Amino acid sequence: MSYLLNGDRILMGTDYYPEHWDKIMWAEDLERMIKIGIEVIRVAEFSWNKFEPKEGEYTWGFFDEFLTLCQAKGMKVIFCTPTATPPAWMTDKYPEVLNARQDGVLYRHGARRHYNYNSLIYQRFTTELVERMGAHYAGHPAIIGWQLDNEINCEINEFYSESDVLAFREFLKKKYGKIENLNTAWGTAFWNQTYTAWGEVYLPRTTLSNSTNPHEVLDYKRFVSDSACRWAKLQSDILRKYLKPGDFITTNGLFGDLDNHRMTEESLDFITYDSYPNMAYGLNSHFVEINELKDRMWSMNLDEVRSLHGIYGIMEQQSGANGWNTGMESPTPRPGQITLWTMQSIAHGADFICYFRWRTCTMGTEIYWHGILDYSGRDNRRIREISDIHKKIKKISEVAGSQYEAKVGILETYDNKFDAELDVWHGAVENASKIGLYTASQMTHTPIAYVYLRENTTAEELRKYQVLFYPHAVILDDEQVTILKSYVEQGGTLVFGCRAGLKNLNGRVVQDALPGAAAKLAGVEVAEFTMVANEESPVYVDWDEDRIEAAVFNDELVPLEGTKTLGTYANSYYKGVPALTAHAVGSGRVLYFGGAFTKETAEMFFRKLKVLSPYSDQVELPKACELSVRTKGDAQYMFILNYSKEEQKIQLKKPMKNLYTGEMLQGEVQLAKYETMVVKA
Amino acid sequence: MSYLLNGDRILMGTDYYPEHWDKIMWAEDLERMIKIGIEVIRVAEFSWNKFEPKEGEYTWGFFDEFLTLCQAKGMKVIFCTPTATPPAWMTDKYPEVLNARQDGVLYRHGARRHYNYNSLIYQRFTTELVERMGAHYAGHPAIIGWQLDNEINCEINEFYSESDVLAFREFLKKKYGKIENLNTAWGTAFWNQTYTAWGEVYLPRTTLSNSTNPHEVLDYKRFVSDSACRWAKLQSDILRKYLKPGDFITTNGLFGDLDNHRMTEESLDFITYDSYPNMAYGLNSHFVEINELKDRMWSMNLDEVRSLHGIYGIMEQQSGANGWNTGMESPTPRPGQITLWTMQSIAHGADFICYFRWRTCTMGTEIYWHGILDYSGRDNRRIREISDIHKKIKKISEVAGSQYEAKVGILETYDNKFDAELDVWHGAVENASKIGLYTASQMTHTPIAYVYLRENTTAEELRKYQVLFYPHAVILDDEQVTILKSYVEQGGTLVFGCRAGLKNLNGRVVQDALPGAAAKLAGVEVAEFTMVANEESPVYVDWDEDRIEAAVFNDELVPLEGTKTLGTYANSYYKGVPALTAHAVGSGRVLYFGGAFTKETAEMFFRKLKVLSPYSDQVELPKACELSVRTKGDAQYMFILNYSKEEQKIQLKKPMKNLYTGEMLQGEVQLAKYETMVVKA
Amino acid sequence: MSYLLNGDRILMGTDYYPEHWDKIMWAEDLERMIKIGIEVIRVAEFSWNKFEPKEGEYTWGFFDEFLTLCQAKGMKVIFCTPTATPPAWMTDKYPEVLNARQDGVLYRHGARRHYNYNSLIYQRFTTELVERMGAHYAGHPAIIGWQLDNEINCEINEFYSESDVLAFREFLKKKYGKIENLNTAWGTAFWNQTYTAWGEVYLPRTTLSNSTNPHEVLDYKRFVSDSACRWAKLQSDILRKYLKPGDFITTNGLFGDLDNHRMTEESLDFITYDSYPNMAYGLNSHFVEINELKDRMWSMNLDEVRSLHGIYGIMEQQSGANGWNTGMESPTPRPGQITLWTMQSIAHGADFICYFRWRTCTMGTEIYWHGILDYSGRDNRRIREISDIHKKIKKISEVAGSQYEAKVGILETYDNKFDAELDVWHGAVENASKIGLYTASQMTHTPIAYVYLRENTTAEELRKYQVLFYPHAVILDDEQVTILKSYVEQGGTLVFGCRAGLKNLNGRVVQDALPGAAAKLAGVEVAEFTMVANEESPVYVDWDEDRIEAAVFNDELVPLEGTKTLGTYANSYYKGVPALTAHAVGSGRVLYFGGAFTKETAEMFFRKLKVLSPYSDQVELPKACELSVRTKGDAQYMFILNYSKEEQKIQLKKPMKNLYTGEMLQGEVQLAKYETMVVKA
Repeated sequence: MSYLLNGDRILMGTDYYPEHWDKIMWAEDLERMIKIGIEVIRVAEFSWNKFEPKEGEYTWGFFDEFLTLCQAKGMKVIFCTPTATPPAWMTDKYPEVLNARQDGVLYRHGARRHYNYNSLIYQRFTTELVERMGAHYAGHPAIIGWQLDNEINCEINEFYSESDVLAFREFLKKKYGKIENLNTAWGTAFWNQTYTAWGEVYLPRTTLSNSTNPHEVLDYKRFVSDSACRWAKLQSDILRKYLKPGDFITTNGLFGDLDNHRMTEESLDFITYDSYPNMAYGLNSHFVEINELKDRMWSMNLDEVRSLHGIYGIMEQQSGANGWNTGMESPTPRPGQITLWTMQSIAHGADFICYFRWRTCTMGTEIYWHGILDYSGRDNRRIREISDIHKKIKKISEVAGSQYEAKVGILETYDNKFDAELDVWHGAVENASKIGLYTASQMTHTPIAYVYLRENTTAEELRKYQVLFYPHAVILDDEQVTILKSYVEQGGTLVFGCRAGLKNLNGRVVQDALPGAAAKLAGVEVAEFTMVANEESPVYVDWDEDRIEAAVFNDELVPLEGTKTLGTYANSYYKGVPALTAHAVGSGRVLYFGGAFTKETAEMFFRKLKVLSPYSDQVELPKACELSVRTKGDAQYMFILNYSKEEQKIQLKKPMKNLYTGEMLQGEVQLAKYETMVVKA
Repeated sequence: MSYLLNGDRILMGTDYYPEHWDKIMWAEDLERMIKIGIEVIRVAEFSWNKFEPKEGEYTWGFFDEFLTLCQAKGMKVIFCTPTATPPAWMTDKYPEVLNARQDGVLYRHGARRHYNYNSLIYQRFTTELVERMGAHYAGHPAIIGWQLDNEINCEINEFYSESDVLAFREFLKKKYGKIENLNTAWGTAFWNQTYTAWGEVYLPRTTLSNSTNPHEVLDYKRFVSDSACRWAKLQSDILRKYLKPGDFITTNGLFGDLDNHRMTEESLDFITYDSYPNMAYGLNSHFVEINELKDRMWSMNLDEVRSLHGIYGIMEQQSGANGWNTGMESPTPRPGQITLWTMQSIAHGADFICYFRWRTCTMGTEIYWHGILDYSGRDNRRIREISDIHKKIKKISEVAGSQYEAKVGILETYDNKFDAELDVWHGAVENASKIGLYTASQMTHTPIAYVYLRENTTAEELRKYQVLFYPHAVILDDEQVTILKSYVEQGGTLVFGCRAGLKNLNGRVVQDALPGAAAKLAGVEVAEFTMVANEESPVYVDWDEDRIEAAVFNDELVPLEGTKTLGTYANSYYKGVPALTAHAVGSGRVLYFGGAFTKETAEMFFRKLKVLSPYSDQVELPKACELSVRTKGDAQYMFILNYSKEEQKIQLKKPMKNLYTGEMLQGEVQLAKYETMVVKA
Repeated sequence: MSYLLNGDRILMGTDYYPEHWDKIMWAEDLERMIKIGIEVIRVAEFSWNKFEPKEGEYTWGFFDEFLTLCQAKGMKVIFCTPTATPPAWMTDKYPEVLNARQDGVLYRHGARRHYNYNSLIYQRFTTELVERMGAHYAGHPAIIGWQLDNEINCEINEFYSESDVLAFREFLKKKYGKIENLNTAWGTAFWNQTYTAWGEVYLPRTTLSNSTNPHEVLDYKRFVSDSACRWAKLQSDILRKYLKPGDFITTNGLFGDLDNHRMTEESLDFITYDSYPNMAYGLNSHFVEINELKDRMWSMNLDEVRSLHGIYGIMEQQSGANGWNTGMESPTPRPGQITLWTMQSIAHGADFICYFRWRTCTMGTEIYWHGILDYSGRDNRRIREISDIHKKIKKISEVAGSQYEAKVGILETYDNKFDAELDVWHGAVENASKIGLYTASQMTHTPIAYVYLRENTTAEELRKYQVLFYPHAVILDDEQVTILKSYVEQGGTLVFGCRAGLKNLNGRVVQDALPGAAAKLAGVEVAEFTMVANEESPVYVDWDEDRIEAAVFNDELVPLEGTKTLGTYANSYYKGVPALTAHAVGSGRVLYFGGAFTKETAEMFFRKLKVLSPYSDQVELPKACELSVRTKGDAQYMFILNYSKEEQKIQLKKPMKNLYTGEMLQGEVQLAKYETMVVKA
């Protein structure tokens, strides 16, 4: 049983950079942390120079001294490998460790994450250092676990170094064996792109119109993911040799072009997330314009993390204004918001909250990425709020180990995620439906779960969801269909949106009638299809007495025998054509919807499929509040979070216990702006 | 007499890529084409690897087999040289064949058109291959003609390879002889840019503020055009040695920095155009915002093509939604639009329509550049529409060989076109007037023709136009003026817009009083001039009882002796100053207008010069419909095209024969949305 | 006593490029100039090839001939070193003289200012040439002074050549002595950026997220300034050896990353400015959108120049439309505007006005940067207006030598200026307050002066200002505080805005309680702070009965003992918290305001601090007019300038003499659009 996520308690931590502060401050800092309930700190993720200040010269004293102090003060430590920032002596002598722009210009020393995963030299330096760090520190009693690197694939998830070229060729050789197979997979007959030797194959480079072969780009994204996974495993395999029993390995963040599920399975005990909902309030923030959910949008990210672990940790939880000197001007969290965002994390499944960071840094790019304390280190409003959060967390401690509850699952695959990023036609439907479904879920208090369809996913795992949406199964293969079929046969409801079955695993379009691999399961064929033209938009579908929008892209459907038409297009030149069908399969059924899901469309699906607002008999709450429910045995923990700056009224329809206060509540309850409540039903 | 544009029939074709599909599909595909009226296909424009899969290894079997099949099925073939996409084995071994960004970064393999015209190595590979292809295939009876390369200067029309530097110097040496002459032409005394040796001269490179000497840039554009023309000629000269009698050479598209007239004269039997009006309906399309003509804007491009040939072919006619995986999301053509755009092509002078493409590609960048058929190849709405088009085309077959009729000509020169692209002051007036005049022409049913003033243009050729607009004769020389004077003396009306005569052929401003070379012919001088300030806009001109806008830029005019003032500025600080003058010359006259032409201004000029709506006594039609007229002998073929999604009413003022149906029509006729009609008057 | 700025007369000049025109035109041009009152011309700033057409070959004849003619015609000459445009023979043979993009791509020949200051080769060429030019020309009687280079740091003020890397290391070694000190100053402990050797240190290079260490970037900006200053001194030191008695050295413009005060002290007799207010009227000009002051905004730049010299010259005064062929489309100055902008220059302290340029250039990038004459050289409206200006200037000649009068000073430092450019949080407050304060000053007729706090600034110099604003003293050290304290003790009023004392001279944040170095002087502490969130904006402050906005960023204040709270926040979650405090120090006081200054906020400060509209007892004028006052002895010269295109009414409250006409005025006076008036009170 690990110290974190132990199922017994919700823990609080913070990040600390002993190398940023005079040693004289360390003891006082640790004591102040302990005093407000912080019992874990994370250290060393950018500290390479503290371990190897010159090539081959290793020093351990700095952190020995610090760890000894931690032990003395009763502070537990998450220790990091410092590989996110190679030192200047290395990047200057060995520039091949650096990442590069697509046009070959190197990313230089002076920021962070400027290295590449495939440099043999960087791998050698890393192996040497991690071995020695493991051997020296892993037995230290203050240490409870390790973080690998920091925010893998953050800052950038494209790599164009020479080392990456060579590694990409190896990746492809392993995948395709013969160059002829690569030619087939990448469709190189198009535009005369055929390769005659491996040495002719490169990473996607500068091409005219910035339009490199899409199948190559898809493999490139998989290669980046593979590189990152191998990078984590390189370090994890070393550390495992030295780890004390019970100590864990993790890393933090959820970044692009990375199969986090694979990385977690291969190298981690669990993944942790870095949550900064205040980004939604940054001046010039694009979130403000595109999304009505604002800071509540981060719940979506938390649901993504939960798809990896029922229960997870937050390695960086926002505790102050965020910003760099070069951007992201954001306001200080308003009173109550730190509590709100902390409870948001817990509501979706976090049992560990580590605030970033203890003191605001006085130097470097992140002088405006504020911590709990400001520059002076004096007590302030935020440390008082966090101290208060600690009291609340103790009150709700029984929540630890409980599971988030959702009847609706949304299927995802890394293949479709990657493809939607490189293919703007795919991306258009994917993005619209992702926002539409999630916003509907939040506004109607219909919890959802993200479910990754992976090679080892079983129909059994899917059965816990009454309804599964596979919004745009653009890349779909028969293996996936087999599992989905089994899920449906056993009573599940599966909903496909438009463009299903369009492509194979290489991202090549199938020559079959659409929806390709999904056709038989959905019992439908696509006769014609089109982007929704600006001039025709919005296109509606009549579904019984109701009307929904079929956004972005429309499939004109032909139900196969045994398939019912539920809805037809209400306007445009394909008015009257089937737009929504249902195909009974075993005890379940498969719906095919010929469009993307807007918020209103998604809500209608929830309603018609009888999964809307499952807690409405227990609690009635306005749209401005989020409802999340975690359960353990018979106990149901309801998190009610007011994201708005107006007071909100909640109706508790039966007696519930307010865990913060212990009092029983029923009937109308008021939540002040940003206020949170955890009730046990 | 060539198989295409034979004056007897309007032909239909399609593009086909045998290398994209299993051989087993070929026969069926050809038979289906024939069945719907397609009798010509274009092949091989990206097929280098099918001819030379490795350096120096030539193979002919693939296309031998395909051509034999074509002959057997009665399909005629346009065969292409595959030089638009050099193979990977070549670009990897000889990177100097590649084009480069201005900063020297090479455009790599992975897209298309990544080569440069001036690489001696690429010229050698091309010469070798085209010689052999000519020798091997040119005698094949299925072949009716050849296409050189594909869309020359598409994707990019800037070249910065090392080979281009060397070729640019040769181009300049040939033009200027001595470096001193280049210094004078380029005005290098400005900013101390004087060259002392040819080796100091480069292509325009990275300069501060991206502002290289404009006279150099003008010559650079001419050099790009020259390179492209030489590229076409290199291939054409070889093929001519092998061509069967009657077979033609063409290439497709109209792209920038290219003197298409020269290329055609030197190397082609005729040029063909690629017409994609649906781009106007792309999501995020800039056309939607800037231009009310939308898909009708393509008529302007067709008029440009016609300036090269009274009658032309369309090598790529839109048959499905267009798009790349990286952009251009566009809807599927709505029912009737393929017919509409086909008839648009024919209305403006096309006698050959080749649909792009037969089947939609399942791989590569263009998976969303849809063909007639979708991925599955099954019959669909679009193939049915094209089959129907074939029937219509047969009905209107007598149109073949007829000529487009226009009383109004708009003068253009490549010098002014190039200069307007590099000079934003020139571009501002040029672009405004181009759109203004064309929109007025479309909306008032006043057909126009673009007329290129070239070295070999004669006054005789100009005489067929009652009125000639030379909207902004910024670069003007005495030779042009001599021809124009002769045109006017014989009774023509010539209209200059503002800024005429500003520059000489090097793009240097004349030191004379403006309008420089035009002053004497126009009988006017420009006392002062100014951009129209935002704060003064719009500036109006009173012309008799009417008021027109003088947009973008204003010349304050001083009529010389014998010149009449027709209009004066109605507001701004130059209120009352002459803005429009007329100078009688021989039996004609020259008008000088001190502004750019908005749509309304252009309409007023048409009206006052009595060339407005020349067919209004025969047919009355709403703005939403286009009217184009082709004539042959006494026959007048009127194309009436409804671009709108609303039904439109037409008044035929005398009996006319509907060529689709053979019936006689008179009085009110209705056109459904997107419907077309061809009537013989 | 120099010929320019001699205190006796206001002089007129123009720029002339003898190398652009046939020699035959020279004499006539000079005579025409003299005739309209121009007695000084500037020449040779881009003429390297006229002095050294090939490496090591020096020729003097061209300018000898021209100078002889000038002398004959009575024209005085400002002679320039031609180093802004190195010749092609040099840049081609020695590309290391070129400046480079951050990614290493060189800026090439073809525009201007493409060299770097630190190239030893370019320094050698420059030294050789300037020595010889000095020796040859400096004694010429027509010459009255020299201009160094042209617009130093214009076009670009970033340098990334190899020479700059080496020079940067020297700069840093000199500043920090040991690499350990650099590590401390730059806070390299953050993100593991520690350097172990000087050779590891580079200029800011390409980094991920374009976010290089901010302390390094701050030093880089100082290095660019240092390089530019050394460049000027290199040339100045040479010329001083040859200068005739009374001849001056100057350079023109005020550009970024340059300590103009240091450059002036070290190398110049005075600096001159290039004034183009018409840029505010360019099509697509960003000025139009962001600033209601439009052309009047240039008054701010003139006040900046005056901070260097009580009295200054204009080396380039707008005389026609400005533009490049690649941008800046601007209208021709409307009738009266040349006069208006000339008087604007004089009103703020100019005693020399040199119009750019005599004739509009007919070649190169600046064909649309119009001069007095157009291309033909014929007399035009603008030369007539300038001739009229000369008459006016003669009438107001007694103004020469008088000083601009302002009771309000605005403190600036180069450190804060540079830091605000690299730090967007700092920039946000700085820019808002700069515009707010200046607009208020203009609209309320409250003249201000910019005052640079420099190492050698004395409290004595500050005492002439009744009120000093230090809007955002983000970088502040104890030396500055000492001087400010002395100013206040002697009766001054000092106003700090938010964020004072945040950083030290390295740009590192202080660990003390804020406002750091300002805390004791202001008698205040900042308890909390925040960017103003979009959702909370605007935040107001109640100040007695009045309400003002506290824009952009808010400090929550805690008055220390003895400090009075003048205003508290009126809304947001910090409603009621002190927002404005006053601390009595000696006979003066220090105000601390916890926000940035909008126009209305600034006006309220002027009013409450009793410095608003100091001339309102003499003249009453609308917002659309500017009022500037220069004084000499008892004489007060009031410049009243109407920037609007509407007539404006002025009330003269006592008799004043109209210097243009000599007549006495009192009561209501009307100013036509763009009209100016100079009255003596």
